[in-house]
Formats: sequence, structure tokens, C-alpha cells
Amino acid sequence: MGAPKRKIINDPVYGFITINHPLIFSILAHPYYQRLRRITQMAMGQLVYPGAVHTRFHHSLGAYHLMGNAVNELRSKGTEITEEEETAVKAAILLHDIGHGPYSHALEHVVVKGVHHEALSLQIMHEMNTAFDGQLTLAIQIFTGAYHKPFLHQLISGQLDVDRMDYLSRDSFFCGVSEGVIGYDRILKMLVVVDGQLMIEEKGIYSVEKFLVARRQMYWQVYLHKTVLSAEKMLVKILERARSLYTSADAAMQTQSSLDYFLGVFNGTMDAHALAQFCALDDHDIMHAIKRWSAHPDRVLSLLCGRFLSRQLYKTTIQSEPFSPATIAAKQKESLDSFELEASEVGYVCFTGEATNTLYQTKDERINILFKDGSIKDISLIDNALIHQNLSAAIKKNYICQLL
Amino acid sequence: MGAPKRKIINDPVYGFITINHPLIFSILAHPYYQRLRRITQMAMGQLVYPGAVHTRFHHSLGAYHLMGNAVNELRSKGTEITEEEETAVKAAILLHDIGHGPYSHALEHVVVKGVHHEALSLQIMHEMNTAFDGQLTLAIQIFTGAYHKPFLHQLISGQLDVDRMDYLSRDSFFCGVSEGVIGYDRILKMLVVVDGQLMIEEKGIYSVEKFLVARRQMYWQVYLHKTVLSAEKMLVKILERARSLYTSADAAMQTQSSLDYFLGVFNGTMDAHALAQFCALDDHDIMHAIKRWSAHPDRVLSLLCGRFLSRQLYKTTIQSEPFSPATIAAKQKESLDSFELEASEVGYVCFTGEATNTLYQTKDERINILFKDGSIKDISLIDNALIHQNLSAAIKKNYICQLL
Amino acid sequence: MGAPKRKIINDPVYGFITINHPLIFSILAHPYYQRLRRITQMAMGQLVYPGAVHTRFHHSLGAYHLMGNAVNELRSKGTEITEEEETAVKAAILLHDIGHGPYSHALEHVVVKGVHHEALSLQIMHEMNTAFDGQLTLAIQIFTGAYHKPFLHQLISGQLDVDRMDYLSRDSFFCGVSEGVIGYDRILKMLVVVDGQLMIEEKGIYSVEKFLVARRQMYWQVYLHKTVLSAEKMLVKILERARSLYTSADAAMQTQSSLDYFLGVFNGTMDAHALAQFCALDDHDIMHAIKRWSAHPDRVLSLLCGRFLSRQLYKTTIQSEPFSPATIAAKQKESLDSFELEASEVGYVCFTGEATNTLYQTKDERINILFKDGSIKDISLIDNALIHQNLSAAIKKNYICQLL
Amino acid sequence: MGAPKRKIINDPVYGFITINHPLIFSILAHPYYQRLRRITQMAMGQLVYPGAVHTRFHHSLGAYHLMGNAVNELRSKGTEITEEEETAVKAAILLHDIGHGPYSHALEHVVVKGVHHEALSLQIMHEMNTAFDGQLTLAIQIFTGAYHKPFLHQLISGQLDVDRMDYLSRDSFFCGVSEGVIGYDRILKMLVVVDGQLMIEEKGIYSVEKFLVARRQMYWQVYLHKTVLSAEKMLVKILERARSLYTSADAAMQTQSSLDYFLGVFNGTMDAHALAQFCALDDHDIMHAIKRWSAHPDRVLSLLCGRFLSRQLYKTTIQSEPFSPATIAAKQKESLDSFELEASEVGYVCFTGEATNTLYQTKDERINILFKDGSIKDISLIDNALIHQNLSAAIKKNYICQLL
Repeated sequence: MGAPKRKIINDPVYGFITINHPLIFSILAHPYYQRLRRITQMAMGQLVYPGAVHTRFHHSLGAYHLMGNAVNELRSKGTEITEEEETAVKAAILLHDIGHGPYSHALEHVVVKGVHHEALSLQIMHEMNTAFDGQLTLAIQIFTGAYHKPFLHQLISGQLDVDRMDYLSRDSFFCGVSEGVIGYDRILKMLVVVDGQLMIEEKGIYSVEKFLVARRQMYWQVYLHKTVLSAEKMLVKILERARSLYTSADAAMQTQSSLDYFLGVFNGTMDAHALAQFCALDDHDIMHAIKRWSAHPDRVLSLLCGRFLSRQLYKTTIQSEPFSPATIAAKQKESLDSFELEASEVGYVCFTGEATNTLYQTKDERINILFKDGSIKDISLIDNALIHQNLSAAIKKNYICQLL
Repeated sequence: MGAPKRKIINDPVYGFITINHPLIFSILAHPYYQRLRRITQMAMGQLVYPGAVHTRFHHSLGAYHLMGNAVNELRSKGTEITEEEETAVKAAILLHDIGHGPYSHALEHVVVKGVHHEALSLQIMHEMNTAFDGQLTLAIQIFTGAYHKPFLHQLISGQLDVDRMDYLSRDSFFCGVSEGVIGYDRILKMLVVVDGQLMIEEKGIYSVEKFLVARRQMYWQVYLHKTVLSAEKMLVKILERARSLYTSADAAMQTQSSLDYFLGVFNGTMDAHALAQFCALDDHDIMHAIKRWSAHPDRVLSLLCGRFLSRQLYKTTIQSEPFSPATIAAKQKESLDSFELEASEVGYVCFTGEATNTLYQTKDERINILFKDGSIKDISLIDNALIHQNLSAAIKKNYICQLL
Repeated sequence: MGAPKRKIINDPVYGFITINHPLIFSILAHPYYQRLRRITQMAMGQLVYPGAVHTRFHHSLGAYHLMGNAVNELRSKGTEITEEEETAVKAAILLHDIGHGPYSHALEHVVVKGVHHEALSLQIMHEMNTAFDGQLTLAIQIFTGAYHKPFLHQLISGQLDVDRMDYLSRDSFFCGVSEGVIGYDRILKMLVVVDGQLMIEEKGIYSVEKFLVARRQMYWQVYLHKTVLSAEKMLVKILERARSLYTSADAAMQTQSSLDYFLGVFNGTMDAHALAQFCALDDHDIMHAIKRWSAHPDRVLSLLCGRFLSRQLYKTTIQSEPFSPATIAAKQKESLDSFELEASEVGYVCFTGEATNTLYQTKDERINILFKDGSIKDISLIDNALIHQNLSAAIKKNYICQLL
Repeated sequence: MGAPKRKIINDPVYGFITINHPLIFSILAHPYYQRLRRITQMAMGQLVYPGAVHTRFHHSLGAYHLMGNAVNELRSKGTEITEEEETAVKAAILLHDIGHGPYSHALEHVVVKGVHHEALSLQIMHEMNTAFDGQLTLAIQIFTGAYHKPFLHQLISGQLDVDRMDYLSRDSFFCGVSEGVIGYDRILKMLVVVDGQLMIEEKGIYSVEKFLVARRQMYWQVYLHKTVLSAEKMLVKILERARSLYTSADAAMQTQSSLDYFLGVFNGTMDAHALAQFCALDDHDIMHAIKRWSAHPDRVLSLLCGRFLSRQLYKTTIQSEPFSPATIAAKQKESLDSFELEASEVGYVCFTGEATNTLYQTKDERINILFKDGSIKDISLIDNALIHQNLSAAIKKNYICQLL
């Protein structure tokens, strides 16, 4: 039977997403890509926003859709993009998150200690490239920024890349948070390439401002919402406790999934075997383990797991100033006493930390505006722009989480 | 600490859902209700509509929201509904699906053989009622239809109940299928109570027609979509195979979840212990088991599980006429040969069945229209209505599923 | 100065509409096209649906946008459409309503007696074609059905043309009537051309059903809403009264607009002078005249105008059966008595009529469905389709309008 | 016949608007309120955003709807609002724009020289109050700020009043400009009254920031869009020219509408006669006059009118710095030469001006935030807020309009 030539996928955010290239069909059908169906995009966001249960599979498809629109827009303005480049940049965006593990970002540095998800994405792309007889070579060049048309890389990873456009649009949509709506369609219409660099037409300034403000609001209102933060910290603490307890001799710790490998065997080297184990791991393994561990004899582990499942999370306070040592000490004592735990276990029931977000980093970020007279300026340097330099400092907030 | 008095939950479908009664807060906080976060509403629908990953938790909240609106509308038209009745009918709709197990409806009759989810809902409500010192007594009376104001029960379970209104609205929203949009807000505005019975004002006829047509389209386009049907049948076949193989001696069959109880121990009697096991079960257990079984020595079980995980489903054909015995035999042989299976195993790789849907059942359904002159007529009897009696016959379609 | 090369117009219905061809820019800039800004799409619909104040200018732009999408879809399925054909079919759809006069359809046969708006559109296109040095020749051929690719004409005027798709989408959007939402994007994705004829892929059946049902509901709920009908009849009666009274000697009748020409001079021959007068006429002239006539000495004229301005319309009743002569006589007497009018004037204050709508006319309409096996069937002949032949009869309703 | 008791109006922005009080029905039915159907909300905005043809009638209804929601929210938080107060504050918001004339704000200070629309609104309310036997007395007290519950007045006219919430929501909706979407529903949920003053709960800070940023973007992208500004200036210049030429002897100047009164007779005193004339004036009179004047012998008047009708507007440039005298002189000469006009007429074809907008005026504006600890702070004084004091300066831009 011939492969399907054209497929339409319904998407509540964009309406329809069209698949019409054999390579894209092959990527979608690959078990590694199908795994993304089982990895939620927003981890614990759903505990505050019940609609936020969408997956990385869906996000990647959405970013792919926006990439197609971006390519069409740029072509209509005279930027040359060949058929091969189009397919490659679409393949690259489809795969940009292929290295994400379960409940990323929450667990990114816990399950697969010390391995960054972008490095993993690249490693998996290389493996798929072998399976696909080199059809992903150009996609990988663009993904790594090695290709001679920088704007293609910038569409995947830059200040106004389709990754951000999709996740902000999609997350605000599924959360039902209108504050995060970014007007992606107008930004796409304003993209332009000058000397190989991606920039924005002058009349798109307000849309970019809106984009930056929406991103900021999504951070404080959603991603760093104190209940979301509380749940994600609990997830991390559960995994940390599990790792500290884990021995293959303890049958009650076994999860019968790849998680056993990463808790008991993995030594930090992502070889072929480790990669195969990683690609078998998804959210279900974590949730199954937590359900199982909720009956484990270790009091800290079972406490955290039980609380997590019934959404009785840390009580979390966020404030601008650091918490005083006296405050911290008092809260820690209170938590230890509540559960009759030992002092060495305090890090699981009461701890502090810092959350940071920046409106616009004048150092690293570069959103260039192309004026009608041909001049180009960074958006933070434009008269009367909302995004002034004095707004560019990172905002740090302190939090304390306490189990009661 | 005092309980929170008022909470607002963002919902992409309705904007905001307000919680403002202690009993409702208690229900939401209960582990049995939190379990619904881990049970998807549309089972395998997400394999065709990637956005359809919303949960029964979310659906129940949505139905609760519509119930509040319905109560307000009816009161504004002079129907008396006391504060107690309002709280009770809201509690009842929140709990109407509490008895759903993992991947219902797909697995309803497979995991918990012979126990209907409504019976389970009622049983769980009774248990929660004990825990809540009888605060759910009125809710249970309304839920079972024992209360003397029938319209309250009809709002929970009837032709135009808020359950249907929410799931049609929510499913079409998360699927991105505009064909299923039903205009719930207008239907709510047209509700009216006469002699204790719920009915629709005359000018709401078109909205009800739209509702019935939308429901029909959701059935054929979404719920009975051939790929969704194919995946759900595969899920059923996996569980059936697992049950047939299951012995506690076979370590590779163990799932380390309540599923073990239902595959190996449960005898059909839903006693307290069985109920506790049931309330510990969710989608994650099923998915974990399937991942585990994909490596089981039984060739049929591992074949089905592996195919399911990578979305290589049965090839399914749907048609009006039954399939001829010759066609069936040829396809069965083809499947058995493909995998070198024995004839006794054919039911796992090639089988037929029937899917049915009715636009409007004139027998059981009663959507009564209240005319301005005070007369009342069933919608199927109205002149020129779209929903004629000759459209009321059930539509049956035949399908054949074949693994290749 | 160089002509603008590319322009984006914000549209609340579709997001953005892109203009990128010199001929399209020329059409948009032409005073005849700008005139459509002053002609509302839904005439008196706004008296019931306050948002329904959108213009024919906007509708034509929207249909142009859908045409661009349709062309892209068909091309992606292998149907050849040249650049010239694309521009021509877009120009034709932009101009398809150019012959509409003020408050069409309400006034179509009243102001310009006996001249159909499609004939006027064609006449105006010919005049513009002269001004544009023949650049509209191909557009006119397509518009009149003379071109050898019938599907291009069918996209402009057929059962599933972009005209209907836009006006149903746009009207339901501006009215805020979700019952009228048609899912135009999915229908567009399902279009296909076979042997030069436009048809719909099999899996688009439900979308087409939805389209027909939505159209039916828009007719009964909006276009033929009894208050809309009442207002439009009043508008017609005002113009009829004005025409019967009109003499150039009566200064109080003069409107100082082209309306004077059509009430006093026009003899039914649409020569160059008449056409120029017609192209100067818009909604403002009618409203100005009505405001002026509300102070005219003629009691019937001033009564109707005054009532119209303050939305004190005919009381209208709609029913399936014809009204009995006795009922009509009684109501007529009541109205005449109320205003102390003479029997000869009864037609202005109490009259009956018939409103008709058909779900699907099996005779004239042809929505062909292309099945996967290559066969083609009319949608009304398909098993289990909602649109059965017995639903295809026209539905007639009788109305009586009475001023009180 | 009994008056209707309850009516539902479809609104594309909010879904449904419910009318359920006899006084509100009486206001809606009054010819002065019906007149608002003929006054567009956004004047010339439609020349850039074709959907922006909504009326003040619709806006007032929308603000009324939001007022109902605000009252419900505040009551649910324990703020006492009596039935009488509710009806009065709803009546007041319905009438808050009743004094707007045609194409306000564009023509506010031109047609009715020196009379502010708020003063006119109050004068008309007083007249209607007489007609309604004093039923509007409380509404007027609230409208003028004389009532002892200041928050009711602040809901009508304040930094977060429902007037702004509606027009920003409605204008962005009809324009199709997602940048202007403000999340009115969340702001309403965050309203709270302390000591009689309206304020915002702490967790509503981001929504208020979004509101202010959206307002700023609507100003620069829509209300002060250079083409909108250009068209509105042209409208003003046309009226100014007409006034300078107007004599009752010149038949070609006569408009046969109340405009004749305001151009030829009105002396600045808004007595009963003048008010009656004003209440007969609407957009149609202006457009009819412009169409008529496009054939007037005065070359400037006919030039401006002709250009306006075919949307050949001033060429407008906007920049931060003032234009140099040399630039202005050169452009003025160019325009005069183009049309062979005299120097004294230059003000009609080439002129400069200033447009101003402020993000947040720390002086006059007061958006108070209520913190959980009970403290209250102005939003501009909150740490890390987007709305810093250094962003509070008014932004001035200079424009030059030139006819070519």
C-alpha cells in the first residue's frame, strides 16, 4: 500500500494542521515521537489549571504548523527557502523536544542527572537520522546552528522562535488564561529576513511588546504559580528520596519500568543502552511509581507520595525579600514536629528557594526591529518602547515550601 | 486555619468556574475526586484528536458550572430551588462520574466485569456520604430520581442534562471539531420547568435541533471514528488476553497496581475491599501494564501491547452492510498468517462488530417543547422539525478490525 | 510613488486577509468598491442582532479570502489553476456583489424596480473592465460561467461557493449566533475537483450536513426572524408609499440624493446615466430620506417613517397555516381604526405574506460527494444522510404584519 | 398587553445580554436611546478595520451587561448593593453615552461647538427623568458622583470602569485586533470594595497590567492609527469648511437635516430646542451631507468630500520629534500647488498636530491594589510592577497630514 499523501489533524488552537511530506509522516510514526504523547507539556500545571493536560506531542505538532506559516510568509517577502530547507526546518522543529523526559521541566535534572534535554534531543535525532538513511542531516545542521542561513535556526531557537510562539499560545489556550494570548499570527506576518537574520518589521513593535508582556505574565501567573511550584518541588523531592533509598534488593522500590535503570544503574553516561532506556520512559512510569511508593515503609517517601496523589501539597509562600533564618528555622521545626521526623530529613518537608524571570534580557536577547528607512534597532533601545532597559533586570522572588 | 471561602478555576471552555460552598470544597479535596484527574474523558480519542486529553475531573467541574447556570436561569423564571437543593444538585453532578474506571468507556465492562459505572458512582457516593456525616443524602436522592422535584434529576440525567451539554461542548472544544459545538448557553437560557418537568421554550427549538445534530456528528466523526474505535478495541483485547493469561505465579504479568486484584482476584462482588481497590485504579496503571506486557513472552499479548504503544493499530473498515463470511474468512486468514498465530487466537487479530447511534429515540427520549399558548409537544412531533420520526431509527454500522 | 505591494487587513472572522496583487488593489481602491462600505450586509438584521452591522465591503473581502484558501487547497490536490485564473477568480468574487443597492436584499426589487442585482453586478464589472483596460475579462468569463473550467464558477456561485461560506460564517459571527457556525475551514479542506466539477470528499459529509443545517437555522432564526421581517417589510412599504407620492413638485419629498432619480425619473432602463446614479446610492440616502419623510404631511408616510426610526414595528405573527380571511379582516379593521386611515391604505398597515426556505433542493442543488472508490453521489441519495429527500420540500410559513 | 418581562439579546462579545427590568426596557425603547443605533462607536476606525462598524447602542448594552456582572461579583463578596441601586447603576451606564453626537469622538467639538458630550448626556438624562417620572433620579446621582457609595460611580467612570472594559473588549473584537483583548472577566472577578472605594485584589495585578498595556496598544495601533487619524481630520476639516461657507441662502449647502441648525443657527446655548435638534442628529446626516457637498461649487469643500468618500485621504506621517518649519513649508507648498489653492486655504490640505497617550497617569489615575494583609497600594508603586512611574509620562507624537 502506498503511504498516505496528505493528512489533516484537528487542533483546537490553530484549526487544522496539514501533514504532506513522507519524511514528516515517518517522523510522526516513529515510536520515539509517539512517546511524546505520554509526556505532558506543563507537568504539574494541571493541578491549578485543569485543562493544562496537553502533551509535548501536541506542542511539537503546533510548532511545526507555525513553522510552515513562517516559511510561507518569508517566501512571500522574497526570502529564498528551498523545498529541502523547508522540509528540514519542519523536521527539526518537530524533533526539537524529542529529548524531553517525563514531567519535564519539573524532573529534567533529577531522573537523568546532569544530561540536558537539548543534548538528548540531538543524540536522538542522530539515531533517527541513521534509521532514516541520512534524511535528517540538514535538519540537524539547522538545529545546531551550523547551517549557513542563520534565520532558519532562529526560527527554531531564538527570541521569536515558533517554539515559544506555540507553547505560549497553546499553554494559555489550554489553561484558559487570556493574559497569555500572544497574537502569534500577527507576529508571523511581521517576520522578515535581512542579511540572513530574522527580524521584525517596524509595525510589529506592539505585537512584540505584547508577546514579551504575555510571556512575563504566563511566568508569574502560571509557570511559577505557587501551587504549581509546590507540586513540582514535591515531585523532585519524591524522586530524590527514592534515589537515596534505592537498592535493587528492596522489592518495594522496584517500579518495573526504565525508572529502575535510572535510579539504580545509570552512571551519567548516555550510551546506546541508556538512550534506549530513556526512550522507554514517560509520565506513566513516574505516576505508577508514586502510587506504588505511597505504600513504601520509608515514612518520608510514603508521606510525600500520598500527599502528592491527593494534592495536599507544600504550603508555599512567595515574597520579594529572602526569608529570615529565624522564620525558616521556626517553620522547619514546625514541619519536623508535625510528622515526627528527624532533623536530617528536614529538606523533604521544609525548604527555601529562588524563582527568577526576566522581561527582556538586553544582554542575550536580540529582537531586532527593521524600520522603514532600512535601519535596525534592538527593541529595548527604541523610544517610548514598553520594554525599557530598566525593566530588563531579572526579577527574583524567594519561596518557602512547608509540609503541614 | 479557616477553609477557603471562594475559589475561581480557569476553564478554557467557560472562562471561570466558581467554587463557593464548603461541601463542594470537601468533595473536590477528597482523594476519590482527585483520582478523576488521572482518568481521561475520551480514552483513545487522543490518538486521532491530539488535544482530547482532558480528564473526567475537568468534565465534572464543567458540568457543575453549567448546573449553577441552569439553577440561576430556572430561578429567574420563577422555579423555586432552595439553597439546600442547589448545593445538593451541584454535589450530585460533581459526583455523577465518580464511579468511572480507567479509560472508560473503552474498558467499562472489561476491568470491572459486570459492574456498571453508574452503580459504582452510587456506591462511592454512599461511602462518601458516611464520611461527610450525611451531607450528601439529598444529593443522592436527586441522583437516584427519588426526590420529589423530577427536574433536578433531569438536569443530571435526561435528554438535555448538563452532563451531555458539558461533554459535547468540552469534547468538541478539546478536539478542535467545530461540528460538535452545541450552543449550550442558549439551550440553558431556554430551559423551563412546568409541573416539575424540565422542558424547552418554543424559541429554543432550533438550538435543540442543533444539539441533536451536533451529538450525531460527534458520534460518527469522533467517538466512533474508525481509528478511535480501532484503538479502543485493541485496549479491550489487551485486557482480555491479559485476563486469560493471568496467574499470580507469572511474575511477568504482575502490574504492581490494583489491576492485579481485578485480573486475578475479583469475583464480581463489589464489597468494601474491592471498592477500595477500584478507587486506587487509574489510567496510569493501564498504561504501565501495557508497557510492561509489551515484553511478555506471550506472543499475542506482547504483539498487541507493542502495536498499541506505537499506534500501529488494527486496520478498520466501516460500512452499512454486514461483511460477508467470505470476506471475514479471507481477512482472518491473512492476519493469522501474518503473525503465524493459531486459529484459536484469531479473535485478537481479526474480528467484526457493530456500532450504533440514534439521532433521537422517540421511545425513550423526551424533549418536550413548551409553546407560547401553553401546549407541550415532543420535538419529534412538531411540524417541519428536522428531527422527524423517520430519522429516529438507530443507525447501525458494521466494522471489521484486522491486524496486519 | 510605487503602489503598495502587500497589505494585511485585520478581520475578526478569519484573522488576517492578505492583498498582494495590483489588480486586487485597483479594485479595492475603486469608488464603486468603496461604496460597498456604505451598504450593510444584513439590512434590518441589526434591529434584532445589534452586532449585525457589517457591510458588503467586508463580506466581499471575506469571500475573497476564502477563495484564496480554496485555490490553495485545490492546487495542493493537483488541480491546475494558473496565476491568471487565480487572480481572475479572486477579482470575480470581490465583485460578485458590486451591484447590490442599499439595504439589499430588503429593497432589491423596490428602489431599482425590475433590475436584478446580479445583472447589475455584471454591468458594473463591464464598466470597470473598460476602465481597467480589459484586465477583468477573464474574471467576467468565470463569473458568467462561460469559462471552460466550471469549478471556478462553482466556487463563486454554487451550492458550496465561498460566497455562502463567508456570509453564513460572517453573519453568525456578527450576530453572535453559534447555531450558524458552519466550519468553513473543514469544508474548504474537503473540496476536490473531478472532471472540472467541484465536489466534496467522502469524509466531508458531516461538515456539509452541518453546513446545510446551519443555513436552515440562520434562515429561520435570523434572516426570517419575525422582527427582522417586520422591519424589512416596513422599509419596503415606506419606499412604495414614497414612490406613489413622489412628484418633483413636492419639495418635502426631495431627498437630495440619487434616490430622487429612482423615485421620479428612472424608467427601468439601466443606461449609463442610470448606472452612475445607482453607483451613488447607499444606505445613508435611505436613512436620510426616512428621517426627512418622518415629517412629511402624508399621514401614512410619516407614520411609517416615525415608527421605523424608533423601532416600533409591525406586530408580526408567523404560522404554518394560512391566516383565515376572518382573522385578516379583523386585524385590518383594527389597524385602520387605530390610525383612522382609509380602506385603500390598508396595505401599509396590515398585510399578509409567505416566507419560504428549503433545506436542500434535490432539483436544483447538486452537492456531489466523491467516495474513496471513485464513485460520485448526490448527498441527498446517500444512506443515512441527514438530508433525506423527504426533507427537501420547501418549508412555507405564513406571516401577517399589523401596525398597532 | 403586558410588557415583556425578560429578553435576551445575542452579543458576539459576551454571548447573551439579559434585560429583565421595566425601567431598562423603557430606556431601550426610548427614541433617544434608539438613536444610538445610528452612531458608530469608532467613527473612522472602519476605514482601517472593516469590522469596526459597531454602534454606541451596542457598546452601551455591553457596558450594561458588564455592570450586571460587576454587581453580582461585589455582592458575592459581601458588598451591599440594593435592588434600587442595581437598577440605577445599570440605567446610568446604559445612558452614559446618550449625549454622543455623530462620529464622536471625531466630531465632538465641531458640530456642537463647545459642548462636552458628558454634559449633554446629563442634560438628556434629566429630560428623560422627567418623562419617566423621576425613575432616573438615583441613576443621575450615581452618574454625577453625588451618591454616598462612591464605588457605584467608579464602576461607571473610573480607571477600571465597565465603560472602558466594554469598549476595549468590543473594539478589539470588532477590529480583529487580539492585542487589545483585556480579560475583562478576570478583572471583574478581582474587583472588591473597601471603605466604599473600588479596588483590585492582589492576585489581579497581572490582569490590570494587561489591561493597561492593551489600552496603550489599542491607542497606538487603532485609535491613533495614522489612516484613522487622517480620515478623522478630514471629517473635521470638511465640517469646518462647511461651517465657514454656510449661509441659508446657499441651497447647495442645505442638508435637510438638523445639521442645518447646527451649522447655521446654533449659538452655543443648549436650550430645549437645540437639544431636540441634537437628538435628531446621527451619522447618516453627516454622510448624506458629505455626499451632497461633494458636488458643491466650493473647490475646497468638494475636493475634501470627494476624497473622503473614495478613501483617498491625507498622506500622514507620525514621528516623535516635531516637524521642522522647512519641512512643513515644503509640504504645504506642494499641496497648494497640486490643487491650485490659495495660501489662506492651506489649513485644509496640509497641517500638523500632536497625538498623546499615557500608559498610566500617576497623578489622576488611581488603581488601588488590596493586598492579602489588608494594605492598599497604588499599582504604580508596587515592586516589580510593569507600570513604573517612569513609564507614566504622556507619550506625545507629532503628525503631519498632507493632501496630494
